Amino acid sequence: MSKSITVAVDAMGGDYAPKEIVKGAVLAIQDKEDINVILVGKEEVIQSELGGYDYDKERIRIVNAEEVISNNEAPVMAIRRKKNSSIVVALNLVKNGEADAFVSAGSTGAVLAGGQLIVGRIEGVERPPLAPLIPTISGVSLLIDCGANVDARPSHLVQFAKMGSIYMENVIGIKNPRVAIVNIGAEEEKGNQLVKETFPLLKEIPDINFIGSIEARDIPYGHADVIVCEAFVGNVILKLYEGLGSALIEKIKEGLMSTTRSKIGALLSKPALKKTLKAFDQSRYGGAPMLGLKGLVVKTHGNSKSNEIRNSILQCVTFTEQKIKEKIEVNLKKQE
Amino acid sequence: MSKSITVAVDAMGGDYAPKEIVKGAVLAIQDKEDINVILVGKEEVIQSELGGYDYDKERIRIVNAEEVISNNEAPVMAIRRKKNSSIVVALNLVKNGEADAFVSAGSTGAVLAGGQLIVGRIEGVERPPLAPLIPTISGVSLLIDCGANVDARPSHLVQFAKMGSIYMENVIGIKNPRVAIVNIGAEEEKGNQLVKETFPLLKEIPDINFIGSIEARDIPYGHADVIVCEAFVGNVILKLYEGLGSALIEKIKEGLMSTTRSKIGALLSKPALKKTLKAFDQSRYGGAPMLGLKGLVVKTHGNSKSNEIRNSILQCVTFTEQKIKEKIEVNLKKQE
Repeated sequence: MSKSITVAVDAMGGDYAPKEIVKGAVLAIQDKEDINVILVGKEEVIQSELGGYDYDKERIRIVNAEEVISNNEAPVMAIRRKKNSSIVVALNLVKNGEADAFVSAGSTGAVLAGGQLIVGRIEGVERPPLAPLIPTISGVSLLIDCGANVDARPSHLVQFAKMGSIYMENVIGIKNPRVAIVNIGAEEEKGNQLVKETFPLLKEIPDINFIGSIEARDIPYGHADVIVCEAFVGNVILKLYEGLGSALIEKIKEGLMSTTRSKIGALLSKPALKKTLKAFDQSRYGGAPMLGLKGLVVKTHGNSKSNEIRNSILQCVTFTEQKIKEKIEVNLKKQE
Repeated sequence: MSKSITVAVDAMGGDYAPKEIVKGAVLAIQDKEDINVILVGKEEVIQSELGGYDYDKERIRIVNAEEVISNNEAPVMAIRRKKNSSIVVALNLVKNGEADAFVSAGSTGAVLAGGQLIVGRIEGVERPPLAPLIPTISGVSLLIDCGANVDARPSHLVQFAKMGSIYMENVIGIKNPRVAIVNIGAEEEKGNQLVKETFPLLKEIPDINFIGSIEARDIPYGHADVIVCEAFVGNVILKLYEGLGSALIEKIKEGLMSTTRSKIGALLSKPALKKTLKAFDQSRYGGAPMLGLKGLVVKTHGNSKSNEIRNSILQCVTFTEQKIKEKIEVNLKKQE
């Protein structure tokens, strides 16, 4: 039997904390045997939420943290000042080896800043990217980087390509994942300064499957498995994905509800429609890992409900079992 | 009666040239009285297409151009070498005052390069942006810049904001249009270097209605009328809009066709669904104008059919009647 894995979970972060976070933790330990959870946050609040569930008390424990970092606080400042916040306390559990991973639906900025400041980067990693999975028509792709560090350099993007490949191959199970760089045309000479400088570097890396540029219109069609870009562009892609998806579905619902005839039609087609649209549901894939850190830090959507929290916790098991951290370490050393 | 307007149309550009282009020109003159069209391209080919229609022969004439610039050619080089291409010949008609505007579904790069090199910039305009209208849940927004000039400077973005405001107010008829800059968070201190430098400049322009940052997720909801960004980001937004929209609709169709029950449902809901989705159909809005030139240049989608060509030609009338060029001239002079 494999060694059990301990995940620290920010019980206070996200729009539906602590209720949905606690529920997600309970679901996760019921789903998988070799996993333990530490819920970090206000003890009495968490205790009272847990009271509603029948669960194995040896596998969920609480670590008290009286403070909460909100989305409006300046991230680095908040991490430095709120030593007793759920994010800082949980990240210290990872740093000290009491937990293997940390999952939070709280402030993205604070989680990213805390990941770097407290858990720390693997030696050789210049910048740890945030890499969410995005749904495509044929499966999922890794969008790397969507973090808070904008104005990246070519060497950062090269590392993103390597780390992203390792993740997609070992966690998602895509052999020889296709790596592409986001560009405004397919030709090598197209692009801004950053892309033009990065393109030839990516071509020269021996152990990634670099397929060239990807235009944004081909991203939803799954033309690449690892989509490399700097964080500003990544953030625009990620958020437009969310916004346009929900706006279109809203429009479609409005259309289906507009006449009596279409209402009957909607009733009949609903089950089939639901099934296909589920493939485009981001919550299925859990959170976005921050790659290149000495421990695993996973950021889930601020509006995560129990299902996404559960998936994010379960994702930590594959990540740890597949020794992603160690593989990144070896890969970056090799090419120094 | 207003003076009639002459639009030069690239009969050889786009996936469906010359058939759909010629048809679009015929539809346009049938729709509106005060418009004449010059079809530019291989005379005998255009003549033979026109033969299929009954139209007022005084309002459509042909100017012969033997060469065609393809999408694969380096734009500036192609403009310089192919003096007898449909794009170069048509742009010269605009330059010489024989046409008021130029519409092309051909190579974006060549149209943009030719617009600058042949028609030329209005005095004071640093960089002419390509500004398509994108559909939103509540109407349309102008995405400025989606052109080929990446790595913009803050002063460029400031001019985009001004020109975009003039366009939305006078062509689309939105009073006091809301201007926002694409950013990765709502706060002023967020963003990359370019956004951080541009933000305070936009705040100080007296005659635009600057409302701050817009996150990509809010773009489809129409939270701003003029969406300012540099061309790389604009291109990513525009193409992801197209790609994600069609991927989602493909998924939905697949879902609707998956069971007998859903097929019946689809049949019933189709008319209503079609009507709502039409609101998200980009071809309704015609092409993207290149702003800040001495004449009007409009780039339509490469896959434009007659309807979009017609709309693009008609759009030239409003643009010219509203004296957008003159308004941009005055506005930029005022603030020198």
